[in-house]
Amino acid sequence: MHRRVSSLAQTTICKYASLPRTELLNMEASKRVQVLQRHLAAGDTMTDLLAAPTASRGASLPRFDTAVMEATLDDLASLKEEVYEVFRHHPELLPASLEGLSKDEHRELVRQQLLLLLKAGFSPLRFYVHDIRKYFYLGELLALVDLSLTVKMGVQYSLWGGSILNLGTEKHRKAYFEDIDKFRLPGCFAMTELHHGSNVAALQTEAVLDVATDEWIITTPDEGALKWWIGNAADDGKAATVFARLKVPALDGSGKVEDHGVHGIVVPLRAASGQSLPGVDIRDCGYKVGLNGVDNGAIRFTGVRVPRENLLDRFGSVDSSGQYRSPYSASRRFAATLGELTGGRVGLTCSSLGILKGAVMVAVRYGAMRRQFGPAGGPEVSVLDYRSQQEKLMPLLASAYGIHFTTRFLVTQYAEAKRTKEEDVIADVHALSAGLKAYVTSYTANALSVCREACGGHGYAAVNRFGMWRSDHDIFQTFEGDNTVLLQQVAGLLLKKYKERFAVAPVTATYRYLRQWAADSLPPNPLVSHDTSARHLRDPAFLTRALRYRTGRLLFTLAQRLNKHTGRLGQFHAWNKCLGHILALARAHIESVMYDHFIEGVNKCTDADCRKSLKVMSDVFALQRIQADVMFRNDDYVAAEKVKAIGRLLEHLRMEMRSVAVPLVDAFNIPDHILRSPIGLQSQDYSTYVEVVGWSPVM
Amino acid sequence: MHRRVSSLAQTTICKYASLPRTELLNMEASKRVQVLQRHLAAGDTMTDLLAAPTASRGASLPRFDTAVMEATLDDLASLKEEVYEVFRHHPELLPASLEGLSKDEHRELVRQQLLLLLKAGFSPLRFYVHDIRKYFYLGELLALVDLSLTVKMGVQYSLWGGSILNLGTEKHRKAYFEDIDKFRLPGCFAMTELHHGSNVAALQTEAVLDVATDEWIITTPDEGALKWWIGNAADDGKAATVFARLKVPALDGSGKVEDHGVHGIVVPLRAASGQSLPGVDIRDCGYKVGLNGVDNGAIRFTGVRVPRENLLDRFGSVDSSGQYRSPYSASRRFAATLGELTGGRVGLTCSSLGILKGAVMVAVRYGAMRRQFGPAGGPEVSVLDYRSQQEKLMPLLASAYGIHFTTRFLVTQYAEAKRTKEEDVIADVHALSAGLKAYVTSYTANALSVCREACGGHGYAAVNRFGMWRSDHDIFQTFEGDNTVLLQQVAGLLLKKYKERFAVAPVTATYRYLRQWAADSLPPNPLVSHDTSARHLRDPAFLTRALRYRTGRLLFTLAQRLNKHTGRLGQFHAWNKCLGHILALARAHIESVMYDHFIEGVNKCTDADCRKSLKVMSDVFALQRIQADVMFRNDDYVAAEKVKAIGRLLEHLRMEMRSVAVPLVDAFNIPDHILRSPIGLQSQDYSTYVEVVGWSPVM
Repeated sequence: MHRRVSSLAQTTICKYASLPRTELLNMEASKRVQVLQRHLAAGDTMTDLLAAPTASRGASLPRFDTAVMEATLDDLASLKEEVYEVFRHHPELLPASLEGLSKDEHRELVRQQLLLLLKAGFSPLRFYVHDIRKYFYLGELLALVDLSLTVKMGVQYSLWGGSILNLGTEKHRKAYFEDIDKFRLPGCFAMTELHHGSNVAALQTEAVLDVATDEWIITTPDEGALKWWIGNAADDGKAATVFARLKVPALDGSGKVEDHGVHGIVVPLRAASGQSLPGVDIRDCGYKVGLNGVDNGAIRFTGVRVPRENLLDRFGSVDSSGQYRSPYSASRRFAATLGELTGGRVGLTCSSLGILKGAVMVAVRYGAMRRQFGPAGGPEVSVLDYRSQQEKLMPLLASAYGIHFTTRFLVTQYAEAKRTKEEDVIADVHALSAGLKAYVTSYTANALSVCREACGGHGYAAVNRFGMWRSDHDIFQTFEGDNTVLLQQVAGLLLKKYKERFAVAPVTATYRYLRQWAADSLPPNPLVSHDTSARHLRDPAFLTRALRYRTGRLLFTLAQRLNKHTGRLGQFHAWNKCLGHILALARAHIESVMYDHFIEGVNKCTDADCRKSLKVMSDVFALQRIQADVMFRNDDYVAAEKVKAIGRLLEHLRMEMRSVAVPLVDAFNIPDHILRSPIGLQSQDYSTYVEVVGWSPVM
Repeated sequence: MHRRVSSLAQTTICKYASLPRTELLNMEASKRVQVLQRHLAAGDTMTDLLAAPTASRGASLPRFDTAVMEATLDDLASLKEEVYEVFRHHPELLPASLEGLSKDEHRELVRQQLLLLLKAGFSPLRFYVHDIRKYFYLGELLALVDLSLTVKMGVQYSLWGGSILNLGTEKHRKAYFEDIDKFRLPGCFAMTELHHGSNVAALQTEAVLDVATDEWIITTPDEGALKWWIGNAADDGKAATVFARLKVPALDGSGKVEDHGVHGIVVPLRAASGQSLPGVDIRDCGYKVGLNGVDNGAIRFTGVRVPRENLLDRFGSVDSSGQYRSPYSASRRFAATLGELTGGRVGLTCSSLGILKGAVMVAVRYGAMRRQFGPAGGPEVSVLDYRSQQEKLMPLLASAYGIHFTTRFLVTQYAEAKRTKEEDVIADVHALSAGLKAYVTSYTANALSVCREACGGHGYAAVNRFGMWRSDHDIFQTFEGDNTVLLQQVAGLLLKKYKERFAVAPVTATYRYLRQWAADSLPPNPLVSHDTSARHLRDPAFLTRALRYRTGRLLFTLAQRLNKHTGRLGQFHAWNKCLGHILALARAHIESVMYDHFIEGVNKCTDADCRKSLKVMSDVFALQRIQADVMFRNDDYVAAEKVKAIGRLLEHLRMEMRSVAVPLVDAFNIPDHILRSPIGLQSQDYSTYVEVVGWSPVM
């Protein structure tokens, strides 16, 4: 390592850039030197870190054992091997790309993939009931086989099966469990209507009790109430849990009808022959942007009669006289009815993570292999050595790890909630699953575009899979809870917790509480907000505190603003007025939680080499988010020079990551026959890609 | 308008949110009141603007005449009518969605679309030569017919035709013009190779002169030199301009070979029968993420012989003895050879704008039609009334207008450059076309994802076209210049201009120059940087100055940094070290230029009602970009409270835009039979969408 001694002249040039130029221009020469010296001292903390040649020729991290890293991530690796092994022997079920398939061909392919898994002995519904961690892990693994398969299984097991298990009672479970598990009874979760997606409480499909025959009569009253986007409906569905307003004749004989709100009822759709049953009119929703291996349909019901017992009656039941009983209030019952969507959201988060890992894996490997331009006279350099490419891809790689640790925590918490049924845990899991589903699926959606673009023209070949992944995954941002709506739920739950404490205390006590509550996240004193040393910037205590400070600040000010506006505008309009603030709070909260679990993952790792890489990634994860949020600057939580120091540090850390980027994606250990993308394979050469167009690899 | 008198208590709550809470908590009560009063005064400038009920119930702009707005945008509207009218009578060429088509079917569809236009009397190559504005406008218009058609035509006319016209001489023009125009001679632009996309100078395909036979021998020396992604090659191409290194035996008889670098040569590919010619091995690149109506192929040449005259010899020629002559230096010749890509980039910008307009049109109309949730007891509200939806869509709408005005300027400048051939204009157009192509295509790519998501589940139906638009458009970010590379060219040209002036002057003069150069964009005095009045924030003088300040600041500091690092690291590594800075500069420059042309468009508009809407959109355009860039804060160019005021003002302006959002997209005047998206039609109801799945609209 050679370091050059700086003359003052060099220093002048060197430090000049960070000063407003007019300030310098208007200065006397002697004063200028003073100023520059002062700035030099302030900047010095970064000097070691960024000294050439390390800074520009690459920084490096110790090479770790990828098997050890994989073990750090996964304690279910054997399931991965089993599942992927099943497909190794069936290349006909893993086509190079889907772009040439019609939707009918694609649907058939997905059916065959599912049947293969069942034949190999996997029992998704048993996983769902007895070993939910495996169930969700399956969702992550199969995402890279074909996302349509994951979604088809999600419909069959999480939604259709889940509705029977969670909303029904023992009689329903007995009647349907085995047939659902074996896919002998493909079914649907018929909730969404043409006019209603997010606002489920406003669904218009009706289930009217006919006391004389002891049956429900299911009807679609108007165009807006057409069931729409119902998975499994267009081809396979033999039955559905139909969400409809329960309408029961008033017991007083007045002839009035009582509306008990939205409930789930099992409605047969098709005969064994596949023919729709009378009164059930099903249409194919047609081609979608992606996921064309899933048969979504639209359904119109015209006076379809089903036995009264088909009501899934765990949270509310109706006897033969029409008497409605529920242990819950209407709002709690509604929440419980929707509660099972929580599991679906956990599953979507896991599958989204699976796609993110695959995409980053391809982009990093290709970036390392691809060479373009270089120093005059020298060989071309790997595109991954460009700072621009590092800025695109390293945060995605770091976030994939961060999301991994957080998602594993979510799954564990979900299992805990199912086991203990503790209300607090359930509420936490609900908020976390809503928030993570929204954050992760939005993150992955964007990452897919970044990865495709980072792979240039070859990223546009269908066989390299970015287009299919993006098109298939896109709707993850919308279904089972629109992300913008879910984030509002997260903010709502934070506000609720905040108010629960706030409400019971008199003003002074409240303020005392706030002081205490905020103690961990107070704005730092000026020495801290100006501290630009790498040691401080990479200190988890600083990073944790900064991210929590933001959440606390946003929560506190949001509560004030809502309080102020609600009186004048009413709840709805006040909420809308603060919507930008609300979404920022939810995202801040999720990022803070994610960093907590990321750093926990770092600390738990017992291998020193792996831990160094994990730590660097956790730093990138947190620092990038602090850098991106102007709130920290506006509050003077970080001074201007500190933000700049964070920028320089991030450049350095991304370069360190680049030195182990390939092993970091190798640790995801996705076998070539599953990843398939010819430019992203372990061999890291063009040979498979050239073969795809029909040339032998060696010309 | 009723406004409530604020008591001090209300004021306390009201203003509290904008203060660091710890500051308040630690204050004496009397001091607290003072502080709050001070903040109240500072914030007062926004009070009128944001007073309820206007703020939360909607602000409005005067309704304008959409025909007048359309005329403000387009002086070629008659061409739009003609082109779209041709397709009105051929619904069979406008399928509802492309997802069900095989690539062969899609390619045939595109061929038929092109032949229809030719049959209707359109002559694209004549437009290209005689009326380039019409040529580019055609690219914008046809983008919404089928982006594959636009790209197929771009390959045939801009690239294949353009290479003949711009690189060749009269003999080539005479030989090929009519046949290219009529598509009797489909051709290719065979530049990209498997290993080389951006780094064109490193292409490896060889053209060796055989003096004995007066022929070029074209050869692919290795796998990396395989021509790849060549449009028109897989099916249609009868010939190609092949870019290859000219290798000529040295005249001294030494047996050495001189490499004159990359030149274009016309090489026949197929016989009239469609059969590949000897030595020409063509493979289909297969399915792509999108644009599957374009037949991209890979080509291997093995000793293919073509006459010496097939060299496109405008910039360099070889006589029968092997003597090479060129009026240009090697680097200028290379630049001239690539120069024609400029036209391609202008075309891509226009087509990208066409897609952006279509997507925003659908998203805004659907957002206005779709209703979800609402105040308790009231009807559901239009989702476009949610602040979150406004934050997503209004900037896209404003930017579509801003991009429109800038693109029209680019086209005019391009025509001017072609006419006058003035070097300064050509250099400007090169920089502007590279920068706008990069900025606009990246912007549109992101906008397509935002629009799909904003349309929820129904945005995921293939018939609504978002998926196809995104998949087709995606590669616009990469081809004819990777966006990250193009932005570097923009920065390079800015630096060159900067250094040209810098170099000739002694230090003192240079500093004087800098002072003058910066006069227009000096950091404002504290009174200005703290001015939060709407009048000031919406003043084009402030907005222009702020955006220029940023460019100047980035350019100045970049020059210093490059200067500092180049000595130590060499040019290549110094450039790489500053890459983030370089890209930021290029983007800043483009945004500043775009705002200039946006505000020019506002000022030129003679209709007062239209102008009001245009002005609001130009404000949103500029303010959003200032708000998003932390550099303004770090330089204290805008104080913290000013950024917050910008945020509040943006919310208000977006609400104003929402009041005329539907007329603003109506003014794009894209007829229903071209837009097609059932949720985005003029009728603004669900009827067409319901019909698509096979139900009659009235149930």
